Amino acid sequence: MECSGELHSVFTCMNQDTKHTSFETPFILESGDSLPAIEIAWKSWGVLNDRKDNVILVCHALTGHAAANEWFSGFFEKDGIIDLDRDYVLCINALGSCYGSTGPSTTNPATGAFWQGGFPEITIRDMVRFQQVLIDHLGITGIQLVIGGSMGGMVALEFALMDHRIQSVACIAMGAKHSPWAVGISHAQRMAIRADKTWNNGFYDPDRQPKEGIAAARAMAMITYRTPENYYQKFGRRLQSGKDVFEVESYLEYQGEKLGTRFDANTYITLSKAMDTHDVYRGREERVLHDLDIPVLVIGINSDLLYPIAEQSELSKELSNSTFVKIKSPYGHDAFLIEFEQINKALTRFYADSLNN
Amino acid sequence: MECSGELHSVFTCMNQDTKHTSFETPFILESGDSLPAIEIAWKSWGVLNDRKDNVILVCHALTGHAAANEWFSGFFEKDGIIDLDRDYVLCINALGSCYGSTGPSTTNPATGAFWQGGFPEITIRDMVRFQQVLIDHLGITGIQLVIGGSMGGMVALEFALMDHRIQSVACIAMGAKHSPWAVGISHAQRMAIRADKTWNNGFYDPDRQPKEGIAAARAMAMITYRTPENYYQKFGRRLQSGKDVFEVESYLEYQGEKLGTRFDANTYITLSKAMDTHDVYRGREERVLHDLDIPVLVIGINSDLLYPIAEQSELSKELSNSTFVKIKSPYGHDAFLIEFEQINKALTRFYADSLNN
Repeated sequence: MECSGELHSVFTCMNQDTKHTSFETPFILESGDSLPAIEIAWKSWGVLNDRKDNVILVCHALTGHAAANEWFSGFFEKDGIIDLDRDYVLCINALGSCYGSTGPSTTNPATGAFWQGGFPEITIRDMVRFQQVLIDHLGITGIQLVIGGSMGGMVALEFALMDHRIQSVACIAMGAKHSPWAVGISHAQRMAIRADKTWNNGFYDPDRQPKEGIAAARAMAMITYRTPENYYQKFGRRLQSGKDVFEVESYLEYQGEKLGTRFDANTYITLSKAMDTHDVYRGREERVLHDLDIPVLVIGINSDLLYPIAEQSELSKELSNSTFVKIKSPYGHDAFLIEFEQINKALTRFYADSLNN
Repeated sequence: MECSGELHSVFTCMNQDTKHTSFETPFILESGDSLPAIEIAWKSWGVLNDRKDNVILVCHALTGHAAANEWFSGFFEKDGIIDLDRDYVLCINALGSCYGSTGPSTTNPATGAFWQGGFPEITIRDMVRFQQVLIDHLGITGIQLVIGGSMGGMVALEFALMDHRIQSVACIAMGAKHSPWAVGISHAQRMAIRADKTWNNGFYDPDRQPKEGIAAARAMAMITYRTPENYYQKFGRRLQSGKDVFEVESYLEYQGEKLGTRFDANTYITLSKAMDTHDVYRGREERVLHDLDIPVLVIGINSDLLYPIAEQSELSKELSNSTFVKIKSPYGHDAFLIEFEQINKALTRFYADSLNN
């Protein structure tokens, strides 16, 4: 693969076996803006069958990428939902991300310069259409299951509403629309990035991205991904060894700095704003969820403070063919990347039922 | 009053009738550092009786000030806990604040320069001792009630443990110690301030303080002061009229900008770090709360996400002479500045019982 056309080669080249496919035709966004050409980064596992319909499509979260085997590892293991003798698993890096697909850190072919702060605003529905370009290109005729958590769950749910190839959906830890609470949390994080000394209205020196702003945003996000009880268990009021700071402060600093070395600031803003657009009712009939007749598994986490479980139970109630499963976990929102045993159990039962129908 | 010795005269001079009292002797901090001299800003209401023991002491929260009648207005009104025919009410601007008392935005008399980022770290117990300097100066012999919420509650509780003049305490919406959850939230806010382009390690140009960092920190804080349900009621997914932003984004921007015009960045860091030191057990016997024999009213808010009500019920259980009252409110942590009817009711009953004993 080539990384020369990307802004931060460090993190766009993380997964050496990620495939990159270019499409030289314009991609029209929901806003009416267009991207002159697109590049799609993706990974697959297993073999596509002759009918090209044995597909499980996995959608990643805000700071994720196409290497689903890394962050959804529990699904790929023994007793996991994925059976590579049966399934062709596909994971596509989201439109707007910085892990190989077209986004703020790639080059605008019309100008030859990096998009940076000039990248247009996108929506969750744009992300679906972006993935459809590759799925069409691969000749895929059926998708047995689309699955995702958090932003990935939003993409999965919209996929079900926008693509008749989808046979079933599992969406975890999100709702039918991004709540003002979640929008507010995202916006406070964007404010921190934009306050950074190197921000320069999104046109920062690629070698000096606004790392302190990203770190503050990430610290804030990490808090909303967990719970007071979990932090008490994890850190107590212990001081970091040899230092005059609390362990929790040191942990948040470390996590913040780490994201700054692997994630682009404009990308964080672009994707978080796309999540804010999430609203399945926007421009559609009120019955849109009721009219979706494929089976939908809605998984909520009892301790999720970012997308409280009421949002998932409400989503499930609006759907006419849904199964609602509550995960009990001390890990808050992050449970969707941790509680694989409970999620696999729910998924396996749901998927077996879906295949039998 | 004189404001010439202070960094941001706009907000240090807000309350024209605030009294300022200077003490030219060194003030030794818990850390061993010392302040060469101190100035204390304070307000009072009512008349101190001959025995000088009819005092209600009110302690303010993080961004508060001595004008308790403004932010605790519900206690000063008819049916409020305060009776100015009976009580002498005192509210002292906290050590480290930027509303007239010695803090990062005042001048270090030893150097003639503003303290700014060189202001020493302080603790909640330093704040108590700072207030005791004025209380001694006024000759006060008895304090019938000390009351505060959030940071003010921490000061009130420490006051009860450090000063035998205190006859009863009411503390609202905090715990026996600052949790790692709350420390983490505060630290993420400090990270945002320090990321700001004008921060300069705390030695910023007084005319260009890190307003964007403060705004991001405030936005983050405002979120933790409320709840998802409250934000849903308040904002829904409505767009700001005439703009392509959500109302919730516009609201947080506005609140953030507003704090930047009335509050100093170093002060925010100094006071939030002082709150992180809050731990009544630090350097004391485990029985410290059990051994406190004066009546303590502990008020918790059922929807408080910053200091969850479990912290208040635990605090109450550790005390040997406590009354625990749960406020039901949709407003989260902010309820301590809103639900005056419920709080006054609990306080009035508690205060009457305390006076009778």
